[in-house]
Amino acid sequence: MAPSEQKQTKKRSPRVPNGKRTYKPLNPEALLADLQREQAGEPQRKTQTANKKQNRPSAPRKNTRRTPQRQAKKPPINIIPLGGLNEIGKNMTLYECCGDMFIIDCGLAFPDADMLGVDLVIPDFSYVEQNIDKIRGIVITHGHEDHIGAIPYLLKRVSLPIYASPLAIGLIKGKLKEHGLLNQAKLFVVNPRDTIQMGCMKVEFIHMNHSIPDAMGIVVHSPAGIVVHTGDFKIDYTPIEGGVTDLARLAELGEKGVLCLLSDSTNAERPGSTPSERKVGRSFEGLFTNAEGRRIIIASFSSNIHRIQQIITVAEKFGRKVAVSGRSMENVVSVAVELGYLSVPEGLLVDIDTISRYPQEKVVVITTGSQGEPMSALSRMATGDHRKVNVTAQDFIIISATPIPGNEKHVTRVVNDLLKLGAEVVYEAMYEVHVSGHACQDELALVMTMTRPKFFMPIHGEFKHLKASAKLAKTMGIEPSHVMISDIGQVITVSEDGISQTGTVPSGRVLVDGLGVGDVGAIVLRDRQHLAKDGLIIVVITMESLTGTLLAGPDIVSRGFVYVREAEELMTEAKQVVKNILDQCLDSGIRDWSTIKMNVRDGLSNYIYKKTKRGPMILPIITEV
Amino acid sequence: MAPSEQKQTKKRSPRVPNGKRTYKPLNPEALLADLQREQAGEPQRKTQTANKKQNRPSAPRKNTRRTPQRQAKKPPINIIPLGGLNEIGKNMTLYECCGDMFIIDCGLAFPDADMLGVDLVIPDFSYVEQNIDKIRGIVITHGHEDHIGAIPYLLKRVSLPIYASPLAIGLIKGKLKEHGLLNQAKLFVVNPRDTIQMGCMKVEFIHMNHSIPDAMGIVVHSPAGIVVHTGDFKIDYTPIEGGVTDLARLAELGEKGVLCLLSDSTNAERPGSTPSERKVGRSFEGLFTNAEGRRIIIASFSSNIHRIQQIITVAEKFGRKVAVSGRSMENVVSVAVELGYLSVPEGLLVDIDTISRYPQEKVVVITTGSQGEPMSALSRMATGDHRKVNVTAQDFIIISATPIPGNEKHVTRVVNDLLKLGAEVVYEAMYEVHVSGHACQDELALVMTMTRPKFFMPIHGEFKHLKASAKLAKTMGIEPSHVMISDIGQVITVSEDGISQTGTVPSGRVLVDGLGVGDVGAIVLRDRQHLAKDGLIIVVITMESLTGTLLAGPDIVSRGFVYVREAEELMTEAKQVVKNILDQCLDSGIRDWSTIKMNVRDGLSNYIYKKTKRGPMILPIITEV
Repeated sequence: MAPSEQKQTKKRSPRVPNGKRTYKPLNPEALLADLQREQAGEPQRKTQTANKKQNRPSAPRKNTRRTPQRQAKKPPINIIPLGGLNEIGKNMTLYECCGDMFIIDCGLAFPDADMLGVDLVIPDFSYVEQNIDKIRGIVITHGHEDHIGAIPYLLKRVSLPIYASPLAIGLIKGKLKEHGLLNQAKLFVVNPRDTIQMGCMKVEFIHMNHSIPDAMGIVVHSPAGIVVHTGDFKIDYTPIEGGVTDLARLAELGEKGVLCLLSDSTNAERPGSTPSERKVGRSFEGLFTNAEGRRIIIASFSSNIHRIQQIITVAEKFGRKVAVSGRSMENVVSVAVELGYLSVPEGLLVDIDTISRYPQEKVVVITTGSQGEPMSALSRMATGDHRKVNVTAQDFIIISATPIPGNEKHVTRVVNDLLKLGAEVVYEAMYEVHVSGHACQDELALVMTMTRPKFFMPIHGEFKHLKASAKLAKTMGIEPSHVMISDIGQVITVSEDGISQTGTVPSGRVLVDGLGVGDVGAIVLRDRQHLAKDGLIIVVITMESLTGTLLAGPDIVSRGFVYVREAEELMTEAKQVVKNILDQCLDSGIRDWSTIKMNVRDGLSNYIYKKTKRGPMILPIITEV
Repeated sequence: MAPSEQKQTKKRSPRVPNGKRTYKPLNPEALLADLQREQAGEPQRKTQTANKKQNRPSAPRKNTRRTPQRQAKKPPINIIPLGGLNEIGKNMTLYECCGDMFIIDCGLAFPDADMLGVDLVIPDFSYVEQNIDKIRGIVITHGHEDHIGAIPYLLKRVSLPIYASPLAIGLIKGKLKEHGLLNQAKLFVVNPRDTIQMGCMKVEFIHMNHSIPDAMGIVVHSPAGIVVHTGDFKIDYTPIEGGVTDLARLAELGEKGVLCLLSDSTNAERPGSTPSERKVGRSFEGLFTNAEGRRIIIASFSSNIHRIQQIITVAEKFGRKVAVSGRSMENVVSVAVELGYLSVPEGLLVDIDTISRYPQEKVVVITTGSQGEPMSALSRMATGDHRKVNVTAQDFIIISATPIPGNEKHVTRVVNDLLKLGAEVVYEAMYEVHVSGHACQDELALVMTMTRPKFFMPIHGEFKHLKASAKLAKTMGIEPSHVMISDIGQVITVSEDGISQTGTVPSGRVLVDGLGVGDVGAIVLRDRQHLAKDGLIIVVITMESLTGTLLAGPDIVSRGFVYVREAEELMTEAKQVVKNILDQCLDSGIRDWSTIKMNVRDGLSNYIYKKTKRGPMILPIITEV
């Protein structure tokens, strides 16, 4: 399906980005045609002498030679990651060429353990807002939270058309509805091999395998050359649906000449290949046989529709009904059924409310909670708080996922609780009940081989992943100086001449806490960490405003510090310590309240530390009457 | 070495435990001799008819028959775990027979993520204190924190002799010194195959392989029969020193007849066998070759002296000096050298202050921090805060450990930071740079086979580990009703008749925070969690005591809630909300301060939630003047 209502932007007058270079008004189509002609005829790419005014280190050039004919100097393309490098999550990359910009993905991240009370983390959108008149739209690689989750927050600030696969659009719609943004959103469905124009850049979508259907890589046909942005991918030779990663197109692009490859690095540390999703289906068959006579409960990521399809297929084979539990699982299954991503035999799917009507050995429950999330359906089953599923020794439970780093203890807690209820639990690496959605080294090498990029930039991972990805690229023969490990907020300029960091833009993480976006910053977090560690002591002092006479107090209130009944003596002494400090202050004529407060804070803090070796937050509050 | 100053307890008069049974005054030695005679002559064990007054489910008896001769009924033995079951850490087990008691191990646990601000967790010692007159001593299996870490806290409350290996005694001494308890402590060194008398029970130590030297299993020769308590172990056929786990003695005990086996369950989920420690040494040789020309830094557990020995051996071979960094590493190495556990060639070990005097390619630094602990030496190297080691691209760093569940993200952070400094980092499963210290299924099965216990009780693990261990025991032919998965605080009574839970004793976790032991409980933790999540708002109101007239305020102070400058309007409105509530209260004649406080709390809380979807702790403080 081609974008049904694509908004074409007008040709724009030349711009002077960063005040550094001036571009001639170029005809992007003609440029592209040039590029293709040239590359078809001449496998070796040509470069002009580097413009000496360009203040960038020029990369060592190999196998390049000047063509005898005069040729237009190609403009560079800027790649500006706003998230997803040196971190897991909030993937977002801005592309800029000849003054036109577009965005790939707009994801969220989950907070680190030290971001106390924070719900979500989203990218800093300042640079997007500053350049909104140049940005032609957002293209989405796939519907995972770390690629679409920040869209509602962005659309609250700017209006931009979004291009995504049917499934991703379905999931985005759900989010926008929750935020009351659905009506004004401009959403366009695209499919593999579709192209859309983003100013001077033509953006092409190509099919990739991943742990969600409809994942796509993005090919940027720009006046600077072809850039391939893989998105998240693996290569699955026996996928559940949708066909294998479009290797043919990648190879074709490689033949034409790829300027730069940006590649998923998540599994770049792992040798070999990620197994096919179908392997999990075979494990399920074996486990369903073992589970004969018992109810089966399977926890999985709700977005892994191929996994859900396999459960449905195996359930049908074993004559079991399937029920769904957990809000996100219910949402995704309903979207997936509606859009035709799940093929469900008539009558197989039953409401979770009705499962008691069927013999339990004829039921499969698919549930959320594979990461041990405390409020998820599986966690509630484990603690006996699930209203509809009561786990007993008659249950056979499969956790069809591996814990994401940081979630190990949550998952273990759920496993222990389920085992205590007598259920049999299959988890982690016990059987092949999960495969990754990301390419391992052999698959990454294959895509590098197919695309033969001149420059390489690892994306989607922490530094160790990017480093492993870069190392692999060098092993594959890409020249070390052509490999760029960068960071968010960097402007990476790529041209035939080289790849280099040419500037920085505002970037970072914006914390979402409840309705607040960005109002929880370093100070608030530091206070929360301090309060979390040792609690607080409030000292309330009421003074006569003119004379400084103590009218009431000092009263001491503590929270999260010590159970007061067990520490009555400590509190009584603390009061006396404060009284002494106040007396000293008044005796020495100190009337400045901030000085008095400081003295109280320091003195009490010392006393408390000496007595307890703890450092609670101490808040002196002076009221004048 | 035999205990040099063993304190013999007098024969004790019969006791009536729990008021349930009466035992005839037994001669334990004679009983033991009986037992051995009987079992040598008759491989099948005999049981008397169960005493009908005993109110316990009797286990199904197989292959038992009444002997024609009258035979003394054997008393039961009680096993009372006070820690280490359904948890990782704070291992402590109390054994009781004929009124005599002794303790195996006294360890600590590290706090869970939700125990905010807590430093350590130790067992509840109430039951020990209640029974101190019956307890003959503490025996220690090995010197890891989860087996010795709580000793200082116990010795602050009771005085008991401690029997442990030379190394464990060395490590315990260090702890007691820190707590100022060394002088009054009664410490006795024991060695494998030594025995000590604990009232009617004879306790024998047997050599086991583990990730610390001198680990020992405990054999309890009791009037009830022989109980084998493995402690932490693996079977290493090519150990670095000390010989293989004493399989011969385990087999001999099996021949005599083992009543009950309590076995380490840590790795019971894992098939196969744990590789030998020596394998790591071979990996080191390969890595030292790769690291030619660069400095090598290796992070490991400080207690893994065999690992340290291997590093020293390989360093010598490659002509490198070895320096040690990190407090616990320095402590352990000095104790180990002093006691002869480390064989260090003259001049090989150099002070960390002097490493700059040697060519860096001739240096190995052994450091703490293999778990990414934020204040450890390796973490400080990674962030550039280490005063003596400055990491550069000339460093080759090996993290010779796997992350303990919960530490994955810390380790990853350190790896990323070290890689960013340009160092090469070898970590996790990249090479065989770590092996576990715990037995996998085949090793566990071997010990079960050797000891042929009548009853089996898995210890040392979370429920999932205990469950896997129990499953293995059943697979090995131990009758299901003879396998007991229990919990801390349970009294497990074992006799020829069966194994069953016959009572409970006080148990649980006591939190250590700074100098406070047990003063941080559920309420304090709940407050810390609340404060951590959304911070707090303090409302200060000053009233005239008689009339209830508002004299000052309401003033609002917040911490960890929102950065106030960004939320001035919210705070101004919040003040007005409180004012309105106060007016309403006074108008309706409410003078009761707790009611006023409650109204302020509820009203402000609703307002704040509506505006921000956050729930900070709200603390109204009313001062009367």
